[in-house]
Amino acid sequence: MPDDLFYHVDGDLVPADEATVSVDDRGFRYGDAAFETLRAYGGTIFAWEAHRKRLERTCDTLSLDHGLSAAELHTRIDETLTANGLSDAYVRLSITRGVQPGKLTPRSVTDPTVVVYVKPLPRGGLDGEPVWDHPVTVETVETRRVPDEAIPAAAKTHNYLNGILARANLSSDADEALMCGLDGRIAEGATSNLCFVRNGELHTPTTDGPVLPGITRKIVLELAREAGISVIEDRYELSDVLEADEAFLTNRTWELRPIETLDEESVGSGPVTERLSRLYDERVERSCYQ
Amino acid sequence: MPDDLFYHVDGDLVPADEATVSVDDRGFRYGDAAFETLRAYGGTIFAWEAHRKRLERTCDTLSLDHGLSAAELHTRIDETLTANGLSDAYVRLSITRGVQPGKLTPRSVTDPTVVVYVKPLPRGGLDGEPVWDHPVTVETVETRRVPDEAIPAAAKTHNYLNGILARANLSSDADEALMCGLDGRIAEGATSNLCFVRNGELHTPTTDGPVLPGITRKIVLELAREAGISVIEDRYELSDVLEADEAFLTNRTWELRPIETLDEESVGSGPVTERLSRLYDERVERSCYQ
Repeated sequence: MPDDLFYHVDGDLVPADEATVSVDDRGFRYGDAAFETLRAYGGTIFAWEAHRKRLERTCDTLSLDHGLSAAELHTRIDETLTANGLSDAYVRLSITRGVQPGKLTPRSVTDPTVVVYVKPLPRGGLDGEPVWDHPVTVETVETRRVPDEAIPAAAKTHNYLNGILARANLSSDADEALMCGLDGRIAEGATSNLCFVRNGELHTPTTDGPVLPGITRKIVLELAREAGISVIEDRYELSDVLEADEAFLTNRTWELRPIETLDEESVGSGPVTERLSRLYDERVERSCYQ
Repeated sequence: MPDDLFYHVDGDLVPADEATVSVDDRGFRYGDAAFETLRAYGGTIFAWEAHRKRLERTCDTLSLDHGLSAAELHTRIDETLTANGLSDAYVRLSITRGVQPGKLTPRSVTDPTVVVYVKPLPRGGLDGEPVWDHPVTVETVETRRVPDEAIPAAAKTHNYLNGILARANLSSDADEALMCGLDGRIAEGATSNLCFVRNGELHTPTTDGPVLPGITRKIVLELAREAGISVIEDRYELSDVLEADEAFLTNRTWELRPIETLDEESVGSGPVTERLSRLYDERVERSCYQ
């Protein structure tokens, strides 16, 4: 928690190290909260409309009717960026049901908790640099993704222990833990989606499985289709990924991050990953810096 | 959050409505926390040793080495009860990894967050009264319990969305949502374990399935065995419960709470439930009030 940043908590800008929530907040007691991780490039929130929609879906899943308009949420993000003098930044927007007395059963939300976190990131786009200093090392773990029947993977919530257990179960110092679903098919990383390239085609686990519909993932698939690259969303075995010509992870912060090794076997980047990374940078440049 | 209570936060007694954690606390960001719900009867924490052990197992599962001794934790609970002038109380003890910068991957814990919540409850034991004012109405829901392969059910954590979704998915105004595992067998309620009686025998879903090893459940099974009642832990269909002679839920706060209806069919209490409730009250009386 950097000392000199301001967060936005329930309508007020407060120093990050004084930004708190009640211990009775349902976000703390139960992880009962929706969130989005966003990036600001040149002061503009990239793909806001996609984030707004996913947040709305998460809140629908949680029956969390916070009553704030998208415009109001965007204003709070803008205010936070301005107060910190940041134009290139990581942004996290969290919404909880606030404090509700006693029971686990959620009640109507009268006083939601809304937190905007920010921290500086490097410039993105064509002149940008990645936030990571090396391609990602990945290891598969025994932890299985929570199935949709228990908690829908499409909901982006503060219940993150599944991913934390996956990371804690890494046997090496790999950067990311890759989880399978209960069917043993590859699902996703703890904080990332997987893509891989075989014979010039782009493959990624289908969001019909227990896979978060990542917004970076969605944009990468769009960019691939626009560029005439075949995109296949399916269910895959680990061996499919190990035999790939190229593989990379995506998330909002990393953008596209090539996989250096998977279970200590080399995978690596290549022409398709590099092309998609450039197309992604161009999209960011066009959307946010021009 | 009652105005006049004190909670214990990180070593200090603070008014409940001023008790906060950082928005960067991993307990808030990720629900990355272990907890226990306890009851104080006559100033004594009932079954402390069982709670201490389960908390330790939860922390082991989460690789959360908080560094506090059981005695230190118990002292904080005692201090909280004393500060509030409470001897019969609900107590919740929550431990998180505290604030850790940046990454999802947990680091060594240097500054854990430890919160003790309390609120008054009626006296328990032989002269006590239940905290509930009516037997429980229960409805089965489509939400499935998170399987052990994703998050072990034996870990009692702040990731409670599974139970919240179950409660939110109730189609009636039932008090409790009963969940099945992915195999369609009955698992447990959102905040309770299930027991039922058939032909004088006590049945309960096995903790080999996705079922929290409830401490009240464990004590009830012990009491039944001591009283010569057959105890069977197995996997059950809904129809098994609907055909039961008696059924009840258990949790720390409710103790034994008879099931009035399950999916709107009458179930009810009976001689075995009543006997076990009395034995439970005697155990509480003996352990805490004498």
